[in-house]
Amino acid sequence: MKFTINRNSFIRTFNDVSRAISTKTTIPVLTGLKLVAESNALILTGSDADISIESTISADDEDNELAVTEPGAIILPAKFFGEIIKRLPESTMTVSQSGDSLQTTITSGASEFTINGLEAATYPQLPTITAAQSLNLPADILHQVIAQTVIAVSTQESRPILTGVHVTISNNQLLAVATDSHRLAQRKIELDGEVSDADFVIPGRSLNELGRMLADDVKTVELRIAENQVLFSFDHTAFFSRLLDGNYPDTSRLIPTSANTTVEFDAPALLSAINRASLLSHESRNNVVRLALSVADQTATLFGNSPEVGNVEEQLSFTNLQGEDIEISFNPDYMKVALQGVGQSTIEVAFTAPLRPFTLVPSEDHDHYVQLITPVRTF
Amino acid sequence: MKFTINRNSFIRTFNDVSRAISTKTTIPVLTGLKLVAESNALILTGSDADISIESTISADDEDNELAVTEPGAIILPAKFFGEIIKRLPESTMTVSQSGDSLQTTITSGASEFTINGLEAATYPQLPTITAAQSLNLPADILHQVIAQTVIAVSTQESRPILTGVHVTISNNQLLAVATDSHRLAQRKIELDGEVSDADFVIPGRSLNELGRMLADDVKTVELRIAENQVLFSFDHTAFFSRLLDGNYPDTSRLIPTSANTTVEFDAPALLSAINRASLLSHESRNNVVRLALSVADQTATLFGNSPEVGNVEEQLSFTNLQGEDIEISFNPDYMKVALQGVGQSTIEVAFTAPLRPFTLVPSEDHDHYVQLITPVRTF
Repeated sequence: MKFTINRNSFIRTFNDVSRAISTKTTIPVLTGLKLVAESNALILTGSDADISIESTISADDEDNELAVTEPGAIILPAKFFGEIIKRLPESTMTVSQSGDSLQTTITSGASEFTINGLEAATYPQLPTITAAQSLNLPADILHQVIAQTVIAVSTQESRPILTGVHVTISNNQLLAVATDSHRLAQRKIELDGEVSDADFVIPGRSLNELGRMLADDVKTVELRIAENQVLFSFDHTAFFSRLLDGNYPDTSRLIPTSANTTVEFDAPALLSAINRASLLSHESRNNVVRLALSVADQTATLFGNSPEVGNVEEQLSFTNLQGEDIEISFNPDYMKVALQGVGQSTIEVAFTAPLRPFTLVPSEDHDHYVQLITPVRTF
Repeated sequence: MKFTINRNSFIRTFNDVSRAISTKTTIPVLTGLKLVAESNALILTGSDADISIESTISADDEDNELAVTEPGAIILPAKFFGEIIKRLPESTMTVSQSGDSLQTTITSGASEFTINGLEAATYPQLPTITAAQSLNLPADILHQVIAQTVIAVSTQESRPILTGVHVTISNNQLLAVATDSHRLAQRKIELDGEVSDADFVIPGRSLNELGRMLADDVKTVELRIAENQVLFSFDHTAFFSRLLDGNYPDTSRLIPTSANTTVEFDAPALLSAINRASLLSHESRNNVVRLALSVADQTATLFGNSPEVGNVEEQLSFTNLQGEDIEISFNPDYMKVALQGVGQSTIEVAFTAPLRPFTLVPSEDHDHYVQLITPVRTF
């Protein structure tokens, strides 16, 4: 194997593929980067068995300055190889390895590294996805769906199915739901054209990594689903993720359909106030803040308290406070994450009772994004 | 106590004083910030017993928007108080506490915090320095002296005296030396006017904190030395540091006065090459790189090696290679730090023998800054 390539092009692709490479894996070959040089292209593969990423650098794109003089394949220690290529002195580098030798030489300018690789044939096969049907999604919409739901997945392994996002495709609509049983986030999008129904649960970690790869220059992502795998294809990259086994709980009846009190807040302003109040709740044994809404007085007051350290009280700005008075206590960290999910928007918060979950929806669109937070009993 | 102040002015001073406040101290009162409101100024004090910083915010500076309506004093929990003031909603804040109560109220806009303080009288006295004589140093020079020497102090407590920088003032010259017994850094400056002799050892940690406080707008620092304390005064700040007890070893004869091989390198280019070579030495049990200089061939070659991972070889660019051939092995991390100390400069490296310390000096000035690195025996 021997090729020369533009170092920045290589590093960019290497960084993408590295998202799937873990240093903590128990399978030694998976700490490696698989590198295949074909006559006209370089294929980089990384995998941690849950996520696999394969990305191609083509010689057709002149920016890559790719010239393969001898095709071949090798597995190189990913972390170490990554540190080398980032520190090489020149804008191009040459990687070569001859015959059966596993020693690979990387040269750039006056610098020459020789590192020990592993045989490419020992690398596990990537999943094969034969699904004929695919679904095309605009990358920015997919990115938004991911960002707005993955925030509510569980990080606890006690109920593994809740560490994923539940995706249901039916009636030309995609519904993504995540919940850790204390809060829930649900995002809906309408799909173009005829799409077959589907129902699967993707690990939250896979979606986080995928979200980070959907940079601004990605326009469309093609989705293919198999028995226990999903494949996202975009640009020169194939992103495979394992799906989670098991039945996702029915969440459709959790979201209240009526409310006794509603109020609107500017999301960033409410976030700042929650951040202040949580300074005190974080010092307390039970991490809870209290919100008191008085319709007659038209006041919204937020309280935080820690017996050791002190307390905080803040009058919140709001609009359209209607319905019954309510006092409700909740974990401010759930509210923070929920408000980050809606961004620079106005939100409507709707309550039914002090111990019943309350909802947050963007004021300008009640139909496509809803979040639910379960209050905390403080008495 | 009651005062209103511009929040940014307060935060800036708070951040300075906080450098001396440790959350790990065994003396509870030292986790606090001492706050004294006088009729026309606010005095903030922080201390960890080794370093004490006292800084004044004056009402005379209109940018501070300081108005003290009731003088007084309190100790507030520094970490927590700092988090509060950084998150307040408005550009000013009011701090108040009445009578003997230790409860202190912080208000800003619609947000009101109440936190528990400690009695100001329980705060330890700052050192008193009665030295009549003082030494004025330009802040930028002092900053450079600190940056160029403190890099060589020992981080090990086995020989406490080596964790400090040894400062000697004599013959209107200031000499600062630090060594951890593997490498040494020595910086000399000429002083203006008549200055009395002095000899003391300042903890490296104190100098690091002081260096960070010498921002660009500080012009001059006044230095006063007492038995076991040193005081640096600048702008509205007094920075006290404990001095280290004990005799600093005599370093004057460690620096070789002649050389058998000399060579010049561009410091940033050599640093990059050392960074590459150390990728491999860091994977090896003994962290060593090897430099081979051949005068006849006019080559300088750097080698790094790790039996498990691989090796690296690089031809270095240089000028003025003279004297005898030499091969020398050293810890690349010492060389990295030394090169960072000289910055964007050309350096002259001078060797006497493979197992004797070698020196680095800036090519443009051989007299004021010298660093010494002890090689490693590899056979």
